[in-house]
Amino acid sequence: MFIFNAQLRVRYADTDQMGYVYYGNYGAYYEVARVESLRNLGYAYKDLEAQGIMMPVLENHSRFLKPAKYDELLRIEVTLKQPPSVRIKFYYRIFNEQDQLIHTGETLLAFVKVNTGKPCRPPEILLKLLSPFFDEA
Amino acid sequence: MFIFNAQLRVRYADTDQMGYVYYGNYGAYYEVARVESLRNLGYAYKDLEAQGIMMPVLENHSRFLKPAKYDELLRIEVTLKQPPSVRIKFYYRIFNEQDQLIHTGETLLAFVKVNTGKPCRPPEILLKLLSPFFDEA
Amino acid sequence: MFIFNAQLRVRYADTDQMGYVYYGNYGAYYEVARVESLRNLGYAYKDLEAQGIMMPVLENHSRFLKPAKYDELLRIEVTLKQPPSVRIKFYYRIFNEQDQLIHTGETLLAFVKVNTGKPCRPPEILLKLLSPFFDEA
Amino acid sequence: MFIFNAQLRVRYADTDQMGYVYYGNYGAYYEVARVESLRNLGYAYKDLEAQGIMMPVLENHSRFLKPAKYDELLRIEVTLKQPPSVRIKFYYRIFNEQDQLIHTGETLLAFVKVNTGKPCRPPEILLKLLSPFFDEA
Repeated sequence: MFIFNAQLRVRYADTDQMGYVYYGNYGAYYEVARVESLRNLGYAYKDLEAQGIMMPVLENHSRFLKPAKYDELLRIEVTLKQPPSVRIKFYYRIFNEQDQLIHTGETLLAFVKVNTGKPCRPPEILLKLLSPFFDEA
Repeated sequence: MFIFNAQLRVRYADTDQMGYVYYGNYGAYYEVARVESLRNLGYAYKDLEAQGIMMPVLENHSRFLKPAKYDELLRIEVTLKQPPSVRIKFYYRIFNEQDQLIHTGETLLAFVKVNTGKPCRPPEILLKLLSPFFDEA
Repeated sequence: MFIFNAQLRVRYADTDQMGYVYYGNYGAYYEVARVESLRNLGYAYKDLEAQGIMMPVLENHSRFLKPAKYDELLRIEVTLKQPPSVRIKFYYRIFNEQDQLIHTGETLLAFVKVNTGKPCRPPEILLKLLSPFFDEA
Repeated sequence: MFIFNAQLRVRYADTDQMGYVYYGNYGAYYEVARVESLRNLGYAYKDLEAQGIMMPVLENHSRFLKPAKYDELLRIEVTLKQPPSVRIKFYYRIFNEQDQLIHTGETLLAFVKVNTGKPCRPPEILLKLLSPFFDEA
């Protein structure tokens, strides 16, 4: 299992007139968290696209438990429960400054070749970097 | 069952460098579709908030079947399968200009009193406007 | 002079916790208005990019006179005061439902070849479509 | 003169199909930079609203010199050239990872009482925190 905690400050731009983070902005929050989790591992998503692979989102599920508010410094816990295959599933749990769980979500993404649009295996380097987290006895 | 078809033009602002609509923008697309469906019925979401009721999103689920692209005029079919109670669930199916189904989603919202934050019943007028679509013999 | 009036409904996603349209969203509003003005003339911006030309924004200026609010159906008046050369300048005036002028802006864009990144002349068709509006005696 | 340098990572959500940061997103970038500049000074914008004062934007001007790209860690230099009165003007200069100046901008904001909508003086604490930067002999 691979776990990473990202931090993200709520912007004024993210709020709506309810005074909460607009529900449509969590997708961008997830993106920040998963990209930072990979960067922390030593892998830049940018390099993936430079290699001709992109990662479109196939499925997304979000549960809004409590509102996130302006200027809060959120903690976004990202988890991979399985090593990636042609697909990769990220789990998110978001905590507010009082460390209350306010949100959970999952995003399923695919590895796809930019030129053919066909699914492909993740880059070897990424698999290698992640393997210590999924090693079995 | 209540069904409505909304139209929405993809903006340049909505695209990302993959050349597709960024996955996080579908929440705003759903919002446009459900607000227009209620307006078509004779009900303005704005009036709901003026009455001291708001509708936060509790849960959201999205499946990205094919990408939506810049300038496409999308058709978003909104469906209510059940009359609203303290909660209301909207189903969405998005079709591109070739009338291909490119996306499906569901959003569960609650009716909540602005001053107390407590769940409440939907306004009578809304129930009345929707009742013909759910009448049983 | 070329003038076009576009309509745009304020989305919940566009508001912030002040209860107004977030100031950063006017750029996307301008985009909708200028793209619709060209479409109305018979020209799709999409075709420009298909021809290998893009139109990056060079400069933007905005004056916020009164706030725009949720669900308002805004009228965005787009004006070209000069025919386009390697640059094109759009002027915007935004009116609310009470027909009050709430916002003015200008955006200067360039015509640029996608493959070289070099400035270029606008497509002939666009110049032809616009010429009746700038004909001199 | 008060100067602060903020850092901001370009999100995938911020890009458009040109592969650049969409021009409409710089408003949110400015917001991050000015809020962080005040926080660094010891002042939270959030506290301002808690005191019944808000800061709507009156005017905005942006010059796009070079594109910002995905995943770049931008440096946003924020400058106040004058101490705030009922208005405050922020100047921005954005640098990419190669330390090239890619963007300049200015934003004029007002201090306004939330309940009356009337302009007001900035909070004393903010004036005090800023005064060392504008002291004259």
